[in-house]
Amino acid sequence: MKLPRQIEIIEVCPRDGFQNIDQFIETEDKIEIVKNLIDTGFRRIEITSFVSPKYVPQMRDAIEVCKAVRNYISGRGVNLIALIPNRRGFETAITSGVDEINYVVSVSEWHNMKNVGRTTEESMEDFKRIATDKGSKKLRISLATTFGCPFGDEIKSERLMELAISSLEYGADEILLADTFGLANPVLVERILSALLKKIDADKLCLHMHDTCGGGLANILTAMQYGIFKFESASGGLGGCPFAPGASGNIPTEDLLYMINGMGIKTGIDFNRLINVVFLISKRVNTPITSHLWAMSECLRH
Amino acid sequence: MKLPRQIEIIEVCPRDGFQNIDQFIETEDKIEIVKNLIDTGFRRIEITSFVSPKYVPQMRDAIEVCKAVRNYISGRGVNLIALIPNRRGFETAITSGVDEINYVVSVSEWHNMKNVGRTTEESMEDFKRIATDKGSKKLRISLATTFGCPFGDEIKSERLMELAISSLEYGADEILLADTFGLANPVLVERILSALLKKIDADKLCLHMHDTCGGGLANILTAMQYGIFKFESASGGLGGCPFAPGASGNIPTEDLLYMINGMGIKTGIDFNRLINVVFLISKRVNTPITSHLWAMSECLRH
Repeated sequence: MKLPRQIEIIEVCPRDGFQNIDQFIETEDKIEIVKNLIDTGFRRIEITSFVSPKYVPQMRDAIEVCKAVRNYISGRGVNLIALIPNRRGFETAITSGVDEINYVVSVSEWHNMKNVGRTTEESMEDFKRIATDKGSKKLRISLATTFGCPFGDEIKSERLMELAISSLEYGADEILLADTFGLANPVLVERILSALLKKIDADKLCLHMHDTCGGGLANILTAMQYGIFKFESASGGLGGCPFAPGASGNIPTEDLLYMINGMGIKTGIDFNRLINVVFLISKRVNTPITSHLWAMSECLRH
Repeated sequence: MKLPRQIEIIEVCPRDGFQNIDQFIETEDKIEIVKNLIDTGFRRIEITSFVSPKYVPQMRDAIEVCKAVRNYISGRGVNLIALIPNRRGFETAITSGVDEINYVVSVSEWHNMKNVGRTTEESMEDFKRIATDKGSKKLRISLATTFGCPFGDEIKSERLMELAISSLEYGADEILLADTFGLANPVLVERILSALLKKIDADKLCLHMHDTCGGGLANILTAMQYGIFKFESASGGLGGCPFAPGASGNIPTEDLLYMINGMGIKTGIDFNRLINVVFLISKRVNTPITSHLWAMSECLRH
């Protein structure tokens, strides 16, 4: 089994993990959690999103969180990432001190309409213009529903390829392949990656897999065998698909890190510190922690 | 990725899943669950264990369960498996109508002493004698702690190889490699299997992985890439390591089957019927269902 010696884990709990939690997480708690994650060793963290507070009230303190964390990371080589769905989000993001912008568009027309209220083509046109204005910011594009969508249109591999290639032509620095509904399996991951990697270098790709059906780590293992070395996950397994509340969503960073450490692959993340951050999250955020490691550490504590 | 076209899933919930549940599961409920599992398509099911009722009171109705299910499967090509720890269990098992006997011994001296109260060598001597008397029964040997034991002695690969080879020489028909504490990872699975497969055919091996740390399916994926095609799992994810109550244990059969189906690998198991059996288990057995598929189906139901 050919595997990378080192991978990069991009932590997304503060954005993807928090965004759908009903009870507002105090801004100072968000900041404390992000600071602790940084101290754990992450070098790229998605800390917030610039979206309408009407739709995502949890992210209404995006600017405050960015500014507070900006000062903390000064000179430490950490990149802060924010998600944006449109031009308006982009404009706020660039003045808020984030280093990377994560623009979201769905391969599924149905999902793009549900998620951002317009066609995929309209989202791509918007992205094209944003890309010309990105300046020194790193620009990522998240291709949601890459691995399938249970509603609406079927995901066509030609369409996925087209969107990926266009994204790079327009100026994307990185493409995020997202398994929004947790529908991937190792054979599908293999099929999609082997097609994309014919035209796109592995270092341009990052995977955001969900663990909805339990196969998240098996999918990451498959991707690593294809040379992919950048993965997103969320501490505590927070977040995931809002269409299935209560189901497992994001891959818990601690489960991923435990497996990766066992395999002798380097990440730069401190496992014990990470477990302490999960403990902090469990105290400050009113949502269940869904990771296997948490269940084990809980039963060892009692 | 080279994968088998078909795999065999051996269902162990009625034994491994039930054995540590405090509240006694009524014998008729056990029988109903086993019958429903058979109707789901499993051709090999571990239905009970012949152990001391003093230590495992849940299994005190082993003979009754065996006899009731025996009549039900007549002529259907189903093999019933029972676990035994010693000669006494063997003698009861052969008169109770099981087709296969699963003899358990630990690679770890510490764990063997804890589990069956004697040295590994004593267990192997006992196994040797049992093997000469097995008659027409299929005899399996479970090598517990194959992938590590957090307590006591370190697991040496030479010792594992020695036990595996001796087992076959003594007359084992199949060797079960068990990740008792859920410590495996894909690199360790690769290392152990590539060593064993130099001397032992893949069809003599079966894997029993735990999902304690979330990597269960990634470990199975690795094993399939090495040609292993027999795996044990427990519906509902019941059971697992009694040293970590509350932690995830056995790989949930429904999570495994969902991934395997998605990969186009055949099993002969009906997924929808399986989910119905998990529902039945949730009604009759007083223990949490830990699978990802269950969490998803629960949230879709509400």
